[in-house]
Amino acid sequence: MAFQSWMAARQARVETALARWVSADTPAGLGDAMRYAVLDGGKRLRPLLVLAASEAVQGNGEAALRAACAVELIHAYSLVHDDLPCMDDDVLRRGKPTAHVRFGQAQALLAGDALQALAFELLTPEGDAVPASVQAALCRLLARAAGVQGMAGGQAIDLASVGKPLTEPELRAMHRLKTGILLQASVRMGVATGAQVPPGARAALDDYGAAIGLAFQVVDDILDVAADSAALGKTAGKDAAAGKPTYVSVLGLQASQALAAELCAKAHRALDASALPGVERLRALADLMVQRNN
Amino acid sequence: MAFQSWMAARQARVETALARWVSADTPAGLGDAMRYAVLDGGKRLRPLLVLAASEAVQGNGEAALRAACAVELIHAYSLVHDDLPCMDDDVLRRGKPTAHVRFGQAQALLAGDALQALAFELLTPEGDAVPASVQAALCRLLARAAGVQGMAGGQAIDLASVGKPLTEPELRAMHRLKTGILLQASVRMGVATGAQVPPGARAALDDYGAAIGLAFQVVDDILDVAADSAALGKTAGKDAAAGKPTYVSVLGLQASQALAAELCAKAHRALDASALPGVERLRALADLMVQRNN
Repeated sequence: MAFQSWMAARQARVETALARWVSADTPAGLGDAMRYAVLDGGKRLRPLLVLAASEAVQGNGEAALRAACAVELIHAYSLVHDDLPCMDDDVLRRGKPTAHVRFGQAQALLAGDALQALAFELLTPEGDAVPASVQAALCRLLARAAGVQGMAGGQAIDLASVGKPLTEPELRAMHRLKTGILLQASVRMGVATGAQVPPGARAALDDYGAAIGLAFQVVDDILDVAADSAALGKTAGKDAAAGKPTYVSVLGLQASQALAAELCAKAHRALDASALPGVERLRALADLMVQRNN
Repeated sequence: MAFQSWMAARQARVETALARWVSADTPAGLGDAMRYAVLDGGKRLRPLLVLAASEAVQGNGEAALRAACAVELIHAYSLVHDDLPCMDDDVLRRGKPTAHVRFGQAQALLAGDALQALAFELLTPEGDAVPASVQAALCRLLARAAGVQGMAGGQAIDLASVGKPLTEPELRAMHRLKTGILLQASVRMGVATGAQVPPGARAALDDYGAAIGLAFQVVDDILDVAADSAALGKTAGKDAAAGKPTYVSVLGLQASQALAAELCAKAHRALDASALPGVERLRALADLMVQRNN
C-alpha cells in the first residue's frame, strides 16, 4: 500500500538523520544517553506529521527534515524528564529501561536538557539551505509549543491534578497543552516550510492539527486501560493507579472511543476544507493515530 | 562614575523586561516557579555582556534586550537543574532557598525546562522589529552554547570528574564548556545584533569573550575557598567538600589569582585589537568580573 511504503521511507529518513545529528562524539558520554533516549524508539508520529504537512504544501525538504527531527528531540526529552523519579518515576519506556535507570538521574536530566537545546540547533543551520525566515518561524513555533503555554505547562497541570476530579473541559485543556500542542505544532512546522501557503489552507491544517492532537490523547487513555504493558512498551494502567484523571475515567470507555472517532472525522473534514491536493498522507496519519494499539 | 550608572540603567532595563516576559499568568503556577528562579537575583553579568557588546557594534536594541534576557533564562534554568538533589543537591542560591526547596523537585524541573524554551521564544518575536536573519543567528548561537557541546556537556564532565584528579588543561576544557561558552556566547549574541561588524572586530570580541569566560570560573573557584556563604549567597567551600577539582585545588590560590589577572589583561588586549570605538563598557565588565567578591 502506498501509504505504508511512504511511511517506512520517511521513518527511515528520520532515523538516519537522528542517528547523524544526535552524535555520540560528546563530552563525558552525554551523547550516549541522548542517543539512548532518541534512537530506535517510537513510531515517529510527530516527524511524520511534519513531513506529510510539508509535502502537502511543497515545502523546503531540508527544513522539513530538520523540523521533523527537532520536534522528535523535544518529544524525547520530555519523556526522559517525565520518567524521572521526581515526576512519574517510570522504569519502562518503549520496552526498555528508562534513561535514568540506565544512565542515572543526573545524566538523564542533562541529556534531556541537551536534547532540547539540540532541537533549536537543528533548526538553525548555517548557510542558506534553509531561509532565515523559515529558521526563525520554526524556532518560534517549537519554542511556544514546548514551553510554559504548551507542553511544559501541560505537565505542570498534570502534576497538580493528581488525585483531583477534573471536568471534561479541564481535562481537554490539560491534554491540549501536554500533548496536543506539540502534535499541532508538528503540522504547523511542516506548513512553515512552505513558501506560499494560502491562509485558508493554513487555518484548515491548524484545525486538523488540533483534532489529531486531542484524538491522540484520548486514544492514549483508552490504551492505558485496554492494552497490556507488553503491547504498550510501557507500564499499563499506570495513570489510573496514580489517581490521574483520564478520558476513560471522566467519560467512560465507550464515550471515549466515540470521541476519538469523531475527532478523526473532524480531522478528515479539515483536510477536505484545506483544498490542498496532496493531503492523503495526513489523512492516513489521522487514521493511524486513532487505530493504533500502542 | 559613568560605568556604574550605565550598569545600573541596563540592569534595571533587564529586570523590567524579565518581569514582563517571564509571566506569572501560566498554567498550574509554573510561572511562579520560573519567576522565582529568574527575578531579583544575580548580577546579570551575561545580559550586561550582551548589551555592552551590542552597543559596541551599534546593534539592534530590541534584539539585544531579547538576547540579554534569553541568555539569562538559560543561565537561570541551568542553576535550577544544577541545584536539584540528583545533581549538586544545593539548598541555598542567591541567599534564598533553591527552587526545588521552595516548589518541589517536579515543579523545579519543569520550570527549568520551560525557561529554556522561553529563551528561544524571546529570540523569535513575530513582526519585523528583529530581522529574521538576526533571530536565526541568535537562536543558533544560544542553542550551541547551551547544548551538549556547551553548557550541558560541561556539566556532564563536571559530574564525571567528581573525586578525580584533573590536569589544568582538563579543568580548563571542563570550565570552558560549563561556564565559559555561555559567557562567550553572550558577547557573540551582542555582536550578532549588529548589521555590519568587521570580521577582525568580530574575532577580537570572540577572544575577549573566551578570556573573560575562563576568568569568571577561575575567580569563582577562588571565591569558593576565600569567601564565606553570606557574601556568596550560596554554600561556600562546597566544591572542595564535594571532591570537585577547582583551579585552587589544581594550581593553588596564588597561581589562580595570577591567572585571573592575566586573563583580564588578555581580555583588555583583545578589546584594543578590535579597533572598535565603544568598548569601554566591555573593558569595565572584564574588570568587574575579576574583582567581584560574590
